[in-house]
Amino acid sequence: MKKLINEIDNIVDEMLDGMTAAYPQYVKRLDGLDVLVRAGGSEGKVALVSGGGSGHEPAHGGFVGKGMLDGAVAGAVFTSPTPDQVYEAIMAANGGKGVLLVIKNYTGDVMNFEMAADMAADEGVEVEKVVVADDVAVENSTWTTGRRGIAGTIFVHKLAGACAEAGGDLATVKAVAEKVIANVRSMGMAVDACTVPAAGKPSFDLAEDEIEIGIGIHGEPGVNREKISSVNEIADKLLAKILDEGIYGEGDEVAVMVNGMGGTPLMELFVANKHIAEVLAGKGIKIYKTLVGNFMTSLDMEGFSITLLKLDDELKPLLDAPADTPAFVQV
Amino acid sequence: MKKLINEIDNIVDEMLDGMTAAYPQYVKRLDGLDVLVRAGGSEGKVALVSGGGSGHEPAHGGFVGKGMLDGAVAGAVFTSPTPDQVYEAIMAANGGKGVLLVIKNYTGDVMNFEMAADMAADEGVEVEKVVVADDVAVENSTWTTGRRGIAGTIFVHKLAGACAEAGGDLATVKAVAEKVIANVRSMGMAVDACTVPAAGKPSFDLAEDEIEIGIGIHGEPGVNREKISSVNEIADKLLAKILDEGIYGEGDEVAVMVNGMGGTPLMELFVANKHIAEVLAGKGIKIYKTLVGNFMTSLDMEGFSITLLKLDDELKPLLDAPADTPAFVQV
Repeated sequence: MKKLINEIDNIVDEMLDGMTAAYPQYVKRLDGLDVLVRAGGSEGKVALVSGGGSGHEPAHGGFVGKGMLDGAVAGAVFTSPTPDQVYEAIMAANGGKGVLLVIKNYTGDVMNFEMAADMAADEGVEVEKVVVADDVAVENSTWTTGRRGIAGTIFVHKLAGACAEAGGDLATVKAVAEKVIANVRSMGMAVDACTVPAAGKPSFDLAEDEIEIGIGIHGEPGVNREKISSVNEIADKLLAKILDEGIYGEGDEVAVMVNGMGGTPLMELFVANKHIAEVLAGKGIKIYKTLVGNFMTSLDMEGFSITLLKLDDELKPLLDAPADTPAFVQV
Repeated sequence: MKKLINEIDNIVDEMLDGMTAAYPQYVKRLDGLDVLVRAGGSEGKVALVSGGGSGHEPAHGGFVGKGMLDGAVAGAVFTSPTPDQVYEAIMAANGGKGVLLVIKNYTGDVMNFEMAADMAADEGVEVEKVVVADDVAVENSTWTTGRRGIAGTIFVHKLAGACAEAGGDLATVKAVAEKVIANVRSMGMAVDACTVPAAGKPSFDLAEDEIEIGIGIHGEPGVNREKISSVNEIADKLLAKILDEGIYGEGDEVAVMVNGMGGTPLMELFVANKHIAEVLAGKGIKIYKTLVGNFMTSLDMEGFSITLLKLDDELKPLLDAPADTPAFVQV
C-alpha cells in the first residue's frame, strides 16, 4: 500500500485540520471533535447535518456552506460516526429553527444518527431525519437493510439545503428532502477496488480484464463481476437498471450526476457522459443539468456511478439556487 | 490496462463532446475541431486562449468561462495541439480586443502556438503570448528547453482572466500574466505513474515502496526515485525546493494550490495541506487563499503537486474576482 499519509490512526484528524486550513472562509472544526460546521454559523435557519464514515471526500465536509449543509460529521474511514459526535454536530449547527439529519442508509449510520437525534431532542432541539437509499444495485447489502445511500445524497444536500437557505421551515425542508429521495436513483461500478489504509490491501481483487458492477462506496464488492467492455456498454448496464425503476420517462426532465469514485480520470467521466447524454436523449428524457466529477468517492477506487434525479417546477429552482461551499459553488 | 473508454483513437473527441453535453451553459465546441470556446462568445474583451495535450483534465477546457479562459485547444493525449487547431481557437475566441495565448513550456506547445499566432496575426488579429514555466524540479527536461509549465498555469488563467473580464487591454492582461508567472512556482511527486491509453502500460515502473519526486505532467519520470516516506516528509521536500527560489519570505502573502494528479484521493491532499499550512505559518508566510483538488492532472497518476503564488495588492483582487467555469466557480 502506497498512500500519502502519516500515521494511519491520524488520517481523519489531519484531513479535517487540512480542510479547515484550506477553507476558513467556509468551515470551522469543533474543538476536539470530528465535526465541521459553517464558519459563520447557521443562526435563524433550519440546519442540515449529514456525515458518515470518512473516505468519501469531498462528502460530506466539502458541502458545508451556504445553500447546502450546516454541519458534517466524519467517522473513521468507512465507519459510522459515534452518536456523541453526531449529537455535538446537531447542537452546534442548530440555529434555533430545528435540524434535519440527512443519513445515508447504512445500519450503523441510521442507528447512531437516530440515537444522537434522541439525545438532542432531550435537550429541546427539534430534529427530523431522512434516509437516502438511492443505490438500485442491491435490495439489501453487507451493511444495510434495504438499499444503500450513495451519490444521490449530494442532490439531497443541494435541494433541501437551498430550501433551508431560502427560509423554509423544518417540515418544508424535510418534505423537499423526501421528494428528492423519491426521485433519485444511482448505480456504480469499479475497474479497481479501493484500499482502506488500516487494511493495507485492496478490498477485493479484480483480474486485469475484470470489472465489478453494482459496487457500493465502502469497498464492498458489487453484484456482478464480468469482463471489461467499452464504457458505453458499461454505462448502458447502469442506466438500464436505473431506468428499470420506472421513474424516468419520455418527456421528463432530469439532473444527471456522473460521479468519479476517487481514482478515475475526469477524461473518462466525460467520455461516459457523452454516451449517457445520447442514451437519455434517445429515450426522450430531457437533461436539465449535469454534474461531472468527484462528489461521493471511495478513497482511491477507480470507477464511476450514474445518478438521475427527476425534476419538476418545485425542484428545478432549488437545484439552480446559488451554493457556496468548498466543493460545490454555483452562482 | 483497464480504462473507461471506447476506442482509444476517439477518446479526445468523445471527451470534448461529453464536456459540451455536460456544460452547454459554459462551452461550445467548434465544428470538427478539438476546440472549446465560451458558449456566449467573448465579444468586446481581450480573449485568453490556452490548451495543450489532453489528459490534464479539467485543464484546460474546464476553465473556459467567465473570469478565466475564452478558448481551449485539446491535443491528443500528452501531445501538443496542431497549429491549425490553435489558429481556429484564436480566430473563434477573438472578440475584437486581441488574444493572449497562455502556453505551458513544452517545446511542441510553444512552437505550435507561436505558429498559430503568426497565422492569426497575418489575418489582422492582435496576438500576444506568455509561457508558463513554474516547475522547479528540473531546469530542462525530456520535452522542454527550460522549466516545464505545470499547475501554476491555473493561476495564470485565473488572474489574467479576471483582468480581461474587468476590461483590461491586451498589454495589461499580458502584464498580469507575466507577473503571475514571475511569482508562481510548483513541484510534484508521484506514488504511481499514469497509463497513456495508446501505450497501454504505465509510463514508468515504481516498486511497492518507491515514489518519484519531481515528476512532470506527461508521465515523464521525476528527478529522484526514493523510498516512500510520510506525506509530511514528502511535502517538506517539495516545499524546500520551491522556497529555495527565494521568492517567498517572511511576511509575504501567498496563494497555495495542492493539486491532485488525477488518481489521488482528496483525503490525502487534505492531509498534505495540513502540514503545508503549518510549515508556511512556521516561516511567517501568510496563506491568503488555498485551493485543494484536481486542477492539472496526468490521467490516472497518483501523486500531487504544491504550487505557491506570491500575492500583492494588485494580484489579490484578481484572485478574489468572481469566476464561473465548469471546473472553477467563485462567487
